[in-house]
Amino acid sequence: MTFKYDNVYINEVSTITGPYEKKGPLSNYFDKSYDDFYFGKNTWEEAESKILEDSVDLLLNKISKTKFDIDLFISGDLLNQITASNFAANNLKIPYLGIYSACASSVEGLIIASNMLEANQIKNCICSVSSHNNAAEKQFRYPVEYGGPKPKTTTFTTTGAASAYLSREKSKIKVESATIGIVNDLGIKDAYQMGAVMAPAIADTINRHLKDLKRDINYYDIILSGDLGIYGKAILKDYMKIEYGIELNKYEDTACMIYDLDKQPVYSGGSGPACAPLVTYSYIFDLMKKKKLTKVLLVATGSLHSTTSVNEKRSIPSIAHAISLEAII
Amino acid sequence: MTFKYDNVYINEVSTITGPYEKKGPLSNYFDKSYDDFYFGKNTWEEAESKILEDSVDLLLNKISKTKFDIDLFISGDLLNQITASNFAANNLKIPYLGIYSACASSVEGLIIASNMLEANQIKNCICSVSSHNNAAEKQFRYPVEYGGPKPKTTTFTTTGAASAYLSREKSKIKVESATIGIVNDLGIKDAYQMGAVMAPAIADTINRHLKDLKRDINYYDIILSGDLGIYGKAILKDYMKIEYGIELNKYEDTACMIYDLDKQPVYSGGSGPACAPLVTYSYIFDLMKKKKLTKVLLVATGSLHSTTSVNEKRSIPSIAHAISLEAII
Repeated sequence: MTFKYDNVYINEVSTITGPYEKKGPLSNYFDKSYDDFYFGKNTWEEAESKILEDSVDLLLNKISKTKFDIDLFISGDLLNQITASNFAANNLKIPYLGIYSACASSVEGLIIASNMLEANQIKNCICSVSSHNNAAEKQFRYPVEYGGPKPKTTTFTTTGAASAYLSREKSKIKVESATIGIVNDLGIKDAYQMGAVMAPAIADTINRHLKDLKRDINYYDIILSGDLGIYGKAILKDYMKIEYGIELNKYEDTACMIYDLDKQPVYSGGSGPACAPLVTYSYIFDLMKKKKLTKVLLVATGSLHSTTSVNEKRSIPSIAHAISLEAII
Repeated sequence: MTFKYDNVYINEVSTITGPYEKKGPLSNYFDKSYDDFYFGKNTWEEAESKILEDSVDLLLNKISKTKFDIDLFISGDLLNQITASNFAANNLKIPYLGIYSACASSVEGLIIASNMLEANQIKNCICSVSSHNNAAEKQFRYPVEYGGPKPKTTTFTTTGAASAYLSREKSKIKVESATIGIVNDLGIKDAYQMGAVMAPAIADTINRHLKDLKRDINYYDIILSGDLGIYGKAILKDYMKIEYGIELNKYEDTACMIYDLDKQPVYSGGSGPACAPLVTYSYIFDLMKKKKLTKVLLVATGSLHSTTSVNEKRSIPSIAHAISLEAII
C-alpha cells in the first residue's frame, strides 16, 4: 500500500540521546545528550518515558507551541505494552494513538499522521519513538550487569528519543510518499541475527515502493535502512540484487552511522526504534537543508518477535515501512 | 480529537471465541467457538495467533474475497510486542499496521481505518484484535494452573478474536464519527482494579465526544463501554454524574454481557481487546440490523500498564477510544 502526499511537511524535530550516541560520530547533530542512563529517574523504564517526554517538550519549545495546540500524539517503543509511550502520553494529555512495529515504529507513526494531515483531518501531529539500551537488554536478553558475551552479529539498542512535528504548513522537509510494510519471515530463529531477519522485509518494501510509484532506484539520492547493522546491510545488498535485480548503490544504514563501529563496543551497529529517526532527523535533515541531499527514502525495519516467541522456537517475522522525504529549498 | 465520517461502513464482521464465551449468554451470536484453549496448536500464544488468523479467513470467506483484495490489515493484542497480531499478519501478507491501546485497540484500529477510508486513501481494510485468557494470565499474572485466588474486582480476559471489514461501500452499519482518547491516571496502582483505573478515561472520552459534536447523551440509543466490569460500571456512572453532570441511563458494559456473571467463574466480568468487539459485532449488530438499536456509541477502554510498571509501583494509566455506529436500514 503506497500513498502520495501533496500537503504534508515535517516542520520541526527534536533528538535526545544517551551516552553511547553522545560519543558517536553524530554527537554534534543531536539537540541534547545525557552522560548516564537514568536521566535523574530511579528505573530505566521511567528514564525512557522521561527522555521521550523531554523530546516532545523540547519540540514544543522549538515551535513555540504548548501541548494544548497539538491535535494528536502518535508514539511507540520496545517496552512490553509500549509503556514508555503510554506514560509519556499520560503526562502530555494530547489525544494519543499507540503503535507497534518494533524498530519500524517511527515510520509507521509518520505514515498514519501523514495520511490524516493530507486529508485535512487533523491540523498537526507529533510523532515520537524511544528506546533505551538497558531497559531493552533487561527485557529481551539479560541485565547488562551480567556482562555476557554476544555474537558479533548482535545489534546494540540505541538510547534516545526522537520527535517530529508534522503539519500542512510548508517548510523545508516535505513528506512526499510512503509505503506500508508486509510482514516477512524466511524462517530465521536467531534473535542475534536481526539484520538477516529484517533484510527480506525491507527488500520487499523498497521493491513495492518503486513499483507502485513507477520509480527507478536512482530516483532517490539515498536509500536509508533503519537498523540492519553491518551484516544485515551486506545481506540486503546481495538479496536486492539477486531477488529483484536492483543495485543498491546510493545506500546507507542508520545503524552503521550512529556509532563509530571501529571504536565503540556496539557489535554490528545500532538498533531500536530511536535509531533511524535519531540519524535522519539530525544528520540527514542537516544535509537536506544544505541541499546536499534532496530525495531521501527512509525505510525503518522492525523485528516482530517477543522473548516468549523466541523461547517457544518460533521463527522471527519482520516488517519495514518506507517514507519518502524531499528537501524543499 | 473527534472525526465525522460520511462514507465509511462496516460491511461484514467475524467472531470466534473460546470455551467460556461459548458457555455465556451470547453463544449463539458468535460465528464459531472452541471447546478448549489450544485450537490444535502447541502453545497458547500460537493458539491466539491462530484464532486471529481464522477470524480473518472466515471474514474473507463471508465477503468472497481473498487476502490479495485487501489494502490494509490493522491489528493489536495484549501479548508482549503484540506477537499474536504479528504472527497472524505474517501468514496473511496484507500490508500491516500494528497498534496498541490494550483493550481499547479494537476502536483504535477502526478509527485509523475509517480516517483512511473517508479520505479515499485505501479502498478497504480489515481491523482485528484478539485476546487469550491463559496467554494473558501467564504473562500478566500467574500460570492458571497455580489456581491462586483473586479479588472479586478482577476481570477475566476473554478468549477470542474479532475482525471487521470496512470499505466505502454502503451497508447496514455505518461508522458515523469517532473520538481519540487522552491518557488518564488518577493514581491507582492495583492491577486487580481495572474498572476503577479506566473509568475516568472513558468518562473524559464520552464527555469530549459529546462536546465536540454538540450532542446530548440521549442522542445515542446506547452507550457501550468496553471492559469495566461490574464495579467499574458503577464507578463510571457515579463519576460521569459527579464530574460532568451526565446521567448514563441507556448504558451497558460489554464485560458484563459476554458472560453470565451469576453462574460463570469470571469475577467482575470480561476484559481483553476481544471483549468489546465480540459483543458489538455479534449481539449488538444483530439488534442494529433488526432496528432495535440505531445509534450506538462504543467506547473501548484500555489499561496501559505492563508487569514491569506495576512491579515498579507506578500508577496505571488508561485510555478510551470512542466510535459512533449507526444502523442504516
